[in-house]
Amino acid sequence: MAFQPANDHPEAALVSNEPFSEDERAAVYRAIHTRRDVRDEFLPDELSEAAVMRLLDAAHHAPSVGFMQPWNFLLIRDTALRGAVHAAFERAAAAEEALLPPERRAQYRSLKLQGILKAPLNVCITCDRARQGPTGLGRTQQPEADLLSTACAVQNFWLAARAEGIGVGWVSILREQDLRDILGIPPEIAIVAYLCVGRVAQAYARPELEVRQWAKRLPLEELIFSDQWGKRVKNSMV
Amino acid sequence: MAFQPANDHPEAALVSNEPFSEDERAAVYRAIHTRRDVRDEFLPDELSEAAVMRLLDAAHHAPSVGFMQPWNFLLIRDTALRGAVHAAFERAAAAEEALLPPERRAQYRSLKLQGILKAPLNVCITCDRARQGPTGLGRTQQPEADLLSTACAVQNFWLAARAEGIGVGWVSILREQDLRDILGIPPEIAIVAYLCVGRVAQAYARPELEVRQWAKRLPLEELIFSDQWGKRVKNSMV
Repeated sequence: MAFQPANDHPEAALVSNEPFSEDERAAVYRAIHTRRDVRDEFLPDELSEAAVMRLLDAAHHAPSVGFMQPWNFLLIRDTALRGAVHAAFERAAAAEEALLPPERRAQYRSLKLQGILKAPLNVCITCDRARQGPTGLGRTQQPEADLLSTACAVQNFWLAARAEGIGVGWVSILREQDLRDILGIPPEIAIVAYLCVGRVAQAYARPELEVRQWAKRLPLEELIFSDQWGKRVKNSMV
Repeated sequence: MAFQPANDHPEAALVSNEPFSEDERAAVYRAIHTRRDVRDEFLPDELSEAAVMRLLDAAHHAPSVGFMQPWNFLLIRDTALRGAVHAAFERAAAAEEALLPPERRAQYRSLKLQGILKAPLNVCITCDRARQGPTGLGRTQQPEADLLSTACAVQNFWLAARAEGIGVGWVSILREQDLRDILGIPPEIAIVAYLCVGRVAQAYARPELEVRQWAKRLPLEELIFSDQWGKRVKNSMV
């Protein structure tokens, strides 16, 4: 695309950015705070096309470096394909378990870590790293910015799903090459997320890995620094 | 942490995941659809501590692989430090411009790409890749999952900010080593996002790079495949 003079008055495209109403803010925070990684609570109900499109449209409205929009959405419903992905998960989980300290392995085996077969829909979200050419705006200094943009799309999808009463589980225990082989994804496309998606009636009030004592919520205050790495702020100074 | 028997009834921690009300859903979608990358609309007003803490708490409630919570939040208000970051941006932008096709350079120069000095608060969000030890759950097959988790935290921060009437701009045109030197970030910590944050009265109705004709919104339908890479779905088949 050759250089085009900017619109005469691009400022005409500005609209109010006022804060949401109290109720609207509460709804946004409710989505953020009650979103869970769902593994075992999926109901078999098919999702409506309209709902799936709303989630994908939410993902498509994520920020992207240089407005690159590098994502694709691969919807997997075929049971044979999901069976193959599930088998790939089993292999990857066995490999991961063997790498854990021995005292954590029994607990690892007791965790339910995916809903590939139970959820009626799986969604693989990918990143086309060359979508806008090799020198996209904002990627010469931070080449992985396109992958981070795609992760933002995953989070939009997830929050919209929570608002719709739809659960999402992100399965990261999969070998990339297995997914490529099963889904026909070419080598130049990065695989960012493999999601299990379906309606859920109930979800954990706190993260399941916290409930099951795998890890604890870190105190937020300890994660905040001021002006220099490691310089703690007093509570009243944030 | 040694293996602990699971709670007797972890299912007791399950709560309803019913869909939000229509108004609540609309609020979540409003945040997703009206969130913008802000560069030039920042007001100088200081943000309240309470508002900043709500945004950071939203970020802290992002999903993270193995409940790793790998993020830190470095709040930068010092003007000398922000001046140094701004100078680093100028150098990085000049280097990026030189890599663009000649016909895009004039337009690139005409774009406002950061609000480092104009926004009252800058936030650097980082990822401590070793936070839960070298073999965290879910990272043996997808080692970059912790970086993607941190990007999800950025998106939570951004959506909460939109609901609060606070603008956010993600500056990816910065050399990582410059940020390390200026902010004292050690080499083992990954820098994921450098954000400009401040109140804004107005924002673009569409992405600024779309308004200014740098790139176009891609049609969502063309980004969706079914079961196999490249296999398009009919509109009625999503």
